[in-house]
Amino acid sequence: MATDIRTSELKEPVDVAEYLFRRLHQVGVRSVHGVPGDYNLVALDYIPKNGLKWVGNVNELNAGYAADGYARVKGIAAIVTTFGVGELSAVNALAGAYSEYVPVVHIVGCPSTAAQKDGLLLHHTLGNGDYSVFANMSRQISCAVSMLNDPYEAATLIDHAIQECYIKSRPVYISLPSDMVTKKIEGARLNAPLNLDFPTNDQDKENYVVDVVMKYLEAAKSPCIVVDACSIRHRALEEVHKLVATSGIPTFVAPMGKGAIDETLPNYGGVYAGDGSNEGVQNYVENSDLVLNIGAIKSDFNTAGFTYRMSQLKSIDFHSYGVYVRYSEYPGVRMNGVLRKVAEKLGKFNVTAPFPKPSNAIPAEEKQDDSGVISHAWLWPRLGQWLREDDVIITETGTSNFGIWETRFPKNVIAISQVLWGSIGYATAACQGAALAARETGKKRTILFTGDGSFQLTAQEVSTMIRNELDPIIFVLCNKGYTIERFIHGWKDAYNDVQEWDYKGIPAAFGCSPEKHQTYRVKSKKEIDDLFNDQTFSDSNKLRFVEIVMDWDDAPRALKSTAAASAKRNEG
Amino acid sequence: MATDIRTSELKEPVDVAEYLFRRLHQVGVRSVHGVPGDYNLVALDYIPKNGLKWVGNVNELNAGYAADGYARVKGIAAIVTTFGVGELSAVNALAGAYSEYVPVVHIVGCPSTAAQKDGLLLHHTLGNGDYSVFANMSRQISCAVSMLNDPYEAATLIDHAIQECYIKSRPVYISLPSDMVTKKIEGARLNAPLNLDFPTNDQDKENYVVDVVMKYLEAAKSPCIVVDACSIRHRALEEVHKLVATSGIPTFVAPMGKGAIDETLPNYGGVYAGDGSNEGVQNYVENSDLVLNIGAIKSDFNTAGFTYRMSQLKSIDFHSYGVYVRYSEYPGVRMNGVLRKVAEKLGKFNVTAPFPKPSNAIPAEEKQDDSGVISHAWLWPRLGQWLREDDVIITETGTSNFGIWETRFPKNVIAISQVLWGSIGYATAACQGAALAARETGKKRTILFTGDGSFQLTAQEVSTMIRNELDPIIFVLCNKGYTIERFIHGWKDAYNDVQEWDYKGIPAAFGCSPEKHQTYRVKSKKEIDDLFNDQTFSDSNKLRFVEIVMDWDDAPRALKSTAAASAKRNEG
Repeated sequence: MATDIRTSELKEPVDVAEYLFRRLHQVGVRSVHGVPGDYNLVALDYIPKNGLKWVGNVNELNAGYAADGYARVKGIAAIVTTFGVGELSAVNALAGAYSEYVPVVHIVGCPSTAAQKDGLLLHHTLGNGDYSVFANMSRQISCAVSMLNDPYEAATLIDHAIQECYIKSRPVYISLPSDMVTKKIEGARLNAPLNLDFPTNDQDKENYVVDVVMKYLEAAKSPCIVVDACSIRHRALEEVHKLVATSGIPTFVAPMGKGAIDETLPNYGGVYAGDGSNEGVQNYVENSDLVLNIGAIKSDFNTAGFTYRMSQLKSIDFHSYGVYVRYSEYPGVRMNGVLRKVAEKLGKFNVTAPFPKPSNAIPAEEKQDDSGVISHAWLWPRLGQWLREDDVIITETGTSNFGIWETRFPKNVIAISQVLWGSIGYATAACQGAALAARETGKKRTILFTGDGSFQLTAQEVSTMIRNELDPIIFVLCNKGYTIERFIHGWKDAYNDVQEWDYKGIPAAFGCSPEKHQTYRVKSKKEIDDLFNDQTFSDSNKLRFVEIVMDWDDAPRALKSTAAASAKRNEG
Repeated sequence: MATDIRTSELKEPVDVAEYLFRRLHQVGVRSVHGVPGDYNLVALDYIPKNGLKWVGNVNELNAGYAADGYARVKGIAAIVTTFGVGELSAVNALAGAYSEYVPVVHIVGCPSTAAQKDGLLLHHTLGNGDYSVFANMSRQISCAVSMLNDPYEAATLIDHAIQECYIKSRPVYISLPSDMVTKKIEGARLNAPLNLDFPTNDQDKENYVVDVVMKYLEAAKSPCIVVDACSIRHRALEEVHKLVATSGIPTFVAPMGKGAIDETLPNYGGVYAGDGSNEGVQNYVENSDLVLNIGAIKSDFNTAGFTYRMSQLKSIDFHSYGVYVRYSEYPGVRMNGVLRKVAEKLGKFNVTAPFPKPSNAIPAEEKQDDSGVISHAWLWPRLGQWLREDDVIITETGTSNFGIWETRFPKNVIAISQVLWGSIGYATAACQGAALAARETGKKRTILFTGDGSFQLTAQEVSTMIRNELDPIIFVLCNKGYTIERFIHGWKDAYNDVQEWDYKGIPAAFGCSPEKHQTYRVKSKKEIDDLFNDQTFSDSNKLRFVEIVMDWDDAPRALKSTAAASAKRNEG
């Protein structure tokens, strides 16, 4: 049972829950996701009192995904669940955040320290008196676990968890027993903000690495840069932008790095993903005499099935945990400082060879097609013509997050998709969190692309959007099932079909009044053109829900080749 | 990488997946729940080929709950998920099955043995090459884990998992790598069915325990029997029925034992749950001079907040793992054999004291109330008047699973609720599985009672009901939020509110055609009376969806006292 600290020992006594939520506010959280449950109810009272908004998700998996989406826009997020039932429902979402380096603080309201000590046979337990099981499960997908069982340790453990979450950019788990919520701890600590800086590199070592990198860069004739996810997640975008813009070196993104780079820059060359690359990109990158890989995650779906072909002798890899030049390893040298200095030293690079210039031009064969049918080959560049600066765009695992490879973005677009973890259902719920974060940061439009099969998993998160008066634009690609899976196995098998919903009837069923939303169903290229040209659609501040009817057997080119590689690998 | 067995070594070669699904068929599974994913697709091909039906749930949590509901009706269930994302989404449902002793075989389609050995950076992984993380998480909520990595072991491991699942009545985890699906193994084993018998007790020891029990029974003046969950889950109902019917001893059920006993028997006395008991029951049970507790789980919600008052000196406890007579312990003596012999030896017991006779009479004060408002005190006995033999009734954690304490059942009613694990959202999805199992076993009506807040978590499982052409009767108690939580903490706080849905618009939004479902909204006692008297409602073979409008601040009596106890315990 938790002991009390005598208030006379404390300069500025605050309750544990107040301390926790004030710290979260300090690091930039403004909305807290989650679902109420009796073990967390008292803690929830502290959320509005400390300047935070309670989102009130419909279920915990959705709340976890939404927190992930929120964190990708705002830099960090928090979710509150209840012991056992609530936390386990969220565990897939948090494993995804762990896998993809997204900082989410997971606060679990638990039975009181006394109940835990006595091993009481309470609801939400396994009935065996073991109160450690669920925390142990989460330990494997958390970069820190803080069990707040003692007021004397609580502030330190809270600070540690939030720092680790931010710096390592991964989820942390905080267990908050119901009786600890109101215990008094030292609030004076709150006057000093948390130090969220990365540890700086040893300067001698960093300079040495910079010199090595410069040596190869100066000798290169046709270098290129490939920017990937970890440059976003490990907060190196400022340094990357500087290097890319200053040097003018042809720059590409891996699929998970989509959105990292200003795609309107003259030296932006498109998406590199082996055989799934944008036109001309594979040839350029793989024939380059020096590739600067920044923050790479070379997973199957991020490389169109491991089809990248790059010699390590022509590669320099920059990571949060080290720099790797050909076969020379410099572990512990974080990329940020190195990139900054290389950009300064290098200045403008003299690019001679022509390189690909991606555009949103409609491919010739699509222009000739007069069927009117909305194809993937047509849709994604057409989308690029319609997008605007500052849009936030979320694409679901499946046809959408492969299709988006063919969309060239305006400036400052934030792109969200879950290419490595790839949990379908993620995108719809993440859209809720992203839209909320976008509103908090003054961004205008949040746009979701999902498929009919994927939408069904987490559809009720549209209810949370309505409850929070968010106004995203939701596109559901209606193609009668799990198309990505058909391309892997089961082309016409019933298990890849889904129940046909009246998708655009969903907002009304979830209680959205007619004047607060607009619905559409588009079946032809012309109807999409009309929609994109319609100001009352593009500039509305209402929730917009669009069914896009597509052929069941169409998919983006990159998806087809990636799926074929997956099918082969599954055979063993 | 999995090696191959040479086919010449095999008498009747069958593929691993065929072996697995044929074994499941043998033990009574007819429908397999789950969601397709690329690592399980090839395995799914074997489901229809082996006489099984693929359910095709909308998400894995729902699939897990549905499998649980199916198992509670049919005796065992199976669910197929995909590695990482799919299995983790289901983990809350499987933890619930572990907690509540429900046998569910969880089959996880995994990356190939070669990919696992090489630690490939595949989608659905944590990106760290560790393929054991998720199985280790499930290990803590499974009574057996079978990793099918080697054809030579596969059949043994499959048999072991299914036997353990059935006999221990808890979930098991089977990892099925994609390349193992088609490996050949010995099919001749399938000619011998699995032995699913419990190990029999040592007869001398069993007889000794029977004599001890008889000694106390023969000395008792006013004994009673309290039947609880484990008599159902550990398959002792036949023995319990015989004892209850033959002896005539006044018999009560704990809330988790609701449905275990024929409530039309003359010696059925109602629900015992300490302060939350049916009228007169607490007094009778707690003043009884000998209580036979059969399969008790004395959890907080099953005892109205630990308010039972029974001296161990007047108790005999019967369990699957032992019998406990006063303070004498007989571990390892399973209840079944003991109960059978006690029933035979005891014969008819001479009951002298009057005991409570529960009925579905409307309480006097409700009869006098002329507001028309549907109250819990009125609803639950009224429901009892409408129920029929062989109904399957599912009640959600909250007002429904406390309210049902006041409903007296007809014969052969199967009652499902999750009193110990208490994960809201469970009931709607479990209803899908239960309705499917009911159809397979020739039962006519499956009836769900849930609340508006709970319904939202797993609402899309109604889509699976529609897809599978099930015709349950769904009642949603619309009382504007999480009522059970209001009674614990946050009486009027916004976090206990939910978005108001057009609930009865849900089946249409999920694609149910008008001629296949009926919807209703009832706001008064008269409207419920009319509904219950309407043959086109009670005897329809269409899906029926009923909104019942109730006051936000009303709850069953037992819920109020249990919630007050929880609130107090949460303070520490």
